[in-house]
Amino acid sequence: MESIPNIASLSPVEIRKLIRAGKFTSPTSGLANGYTQANLVILPKELAYDFLLFTQRNPRPCPVLEVSDIGSRKLHKFATDVDLANDFPKYRIYRNGVSTGEVTSVEDYWQDDLVSFLIGCSFSFESELIAAGIEIRHITENVNVPMYNTSIPLESAGKFHGNMVVSMRPIPENQVVTAVNVTAAMPKVHGAPIQVGNPKAIGIKDISKPDYGDMVSIKPGEVPVFWPCGVTPQNAIMQVKPDFVITHAPGHMLITDIKNTVLKYE
Amino acid sequence: MESIPNIASLSPVEIRKLIRAGKFTSPTSGLANGYTQANLVILPKELAYDFLLFTQRNPRPCPVLEVSDIGSRKLHKFATDVDLANDFPKYRIYRNGVSTGEVTSVEDYWQDDLVSFLIGCSFSFESELIAAGIEIRHITENVNVPMYNTSIPLESAGKFHGNMVVSMRPIPENQVVTAVNVTAAMPKVHGAPIQVGNPKAIGIKDISKPDYGDMVSIKPGEVPVFWPCGVTPQNAIMQVKPDFVITHAPGHMLITDIKNTVLKYE
Repeated sequence: MESIPNIASLSPVEIRKLIRAGKFTSPTSGLANGYTQANLVILPKELAYDFLLFTQRNPRPCPVLEVSDIGSRKLHKFATDVDLANDFPKYRIYRNGVSTGEVTSVEDYWQDDLVSFLIGCSFSFESELIAAGIEIRHITENVNVPMYNTSIPLESAGKFHGNMVVSMRPIPENQVVTAVNVTAAMPKVHGAPIQVGNPKAIGIKDISKPDYGDMVSIKPGEVPVFWPCGVTPQNAIMQVKPDFVITHAPGHMLITDIKNTVLKYE
Repeated sequence: MESIPNIASLSPVEIRKLIRAGKFTSPTSGLANGYTQANLVILPKELAYDFLLFTQRNPRPCPVLEVSDIGSRKLHKFATDVDLANDFPKYRIYRNGVSTGEVTSVEDYWQDDLVSFLIGCSFSFESELIAAGIEIRHITENVNVPMYNTSIPLESAGKFHGNMVVSMRPIPENQVVTAVNVTAAMPKVHGAPIQVGNPKAIGIKDISKPDYGDMVSIKPGEVPVFWPCGVTPQNAIMQVKPDFVITHAPGHMLITDIKNTVLKYE
């Protein structure tokens, strides 16, 4: 994290202004504790109906928090003083499904036909799990969460199709029920687990080799618990190889004005 | 209800087949107890993105259960053996925002660019309220639920905008908490109330004069409780006066294969 005094104590709008000014370009984990952070997908309008329908049909891996108006860099609900082209610390530009690099502003790439999708992120439910006394192993071990391709088919919608990607967190057997209950109450950020304890049942052959992120230790008495993962929509988009897509860079999220607790009752 | 022997004991698919054959054209209230019934809006594709976004931004009054593929009369999830052009007992055809009559099949009106939206209905939560020991007054009094225009603005999306329409049920003071809890658990069918006890706060000037449906008696010790209502999306559409829209006729719903209880955990 860059050396900005007291950044951990700043409000969402204060942090967004620092990011907008180019003064903070790091991952957002740990910032504005308690506020929802969001993933980003920006697509041309011609793909927006199929993608919105894809998220409607697959809400567990693709929980849409908000969709911008066509061409707009503003939001109505999750943030007021916001510029979607500058308020993520880092973006990725994709052309024909291939990443062409990371930038800290997409102002120069903006087009009048772009639609921005804010998608819920498991950061929100992890802070609730920690509050419920559950250790999040990848946080303890300071690595990225392990993620896997699965055999769980998604409902296709127009051009978009694919299988679900899941994230895995080892949970002590006696805390599995708590973990299910805490996350089931948060459907806007992936909700309850999709599988408990049996990776082979969802097509994961070797749990020690995640397809994305890093492996974490699974201790005696713990079971691997799998949640629908926000990598799913990005994966589905890249299979379509659209001419032009913008996403956030992994870990570099939008910090919204909405608290995780409020999100539970939306 | 038409005199079909044992109709109340038939399964959803059996009832849909009777309806498809033109043998049942009445309201569906009380049929296939425990199964979700759905409202219908059919729009041309050119309006579908704006309308889908409108429902995403206003999920409480416009809870989308499923959206068909473009031009398709089938569903993926809520019913397998289904024909959307024949399986509602009665439809309304609108041209330029004006109803031009009711029909029992829309097969002859079908176009390749039509998209069907199935929208959740308060029938689902009423059966749960009754199971929780709460009397539903308009059922007891055998009239339509009272509904009101409000001053609660909706989030607009493209061409669609408007205010929320609400339904009202009188609830004894000592059952209000139960009514809130039961319905809050069912966000796919409007979820928790939007207002408890103060009609003026949401712009309702005279509770004895509903804008739609019929007034019911409010007894001493009861408070009026207001829920987001499925008339909201139809109202918003008619303000746009599209060239061509099909809806179900009020009370004449699709009986789906999905149980209300399952819907709670979707």
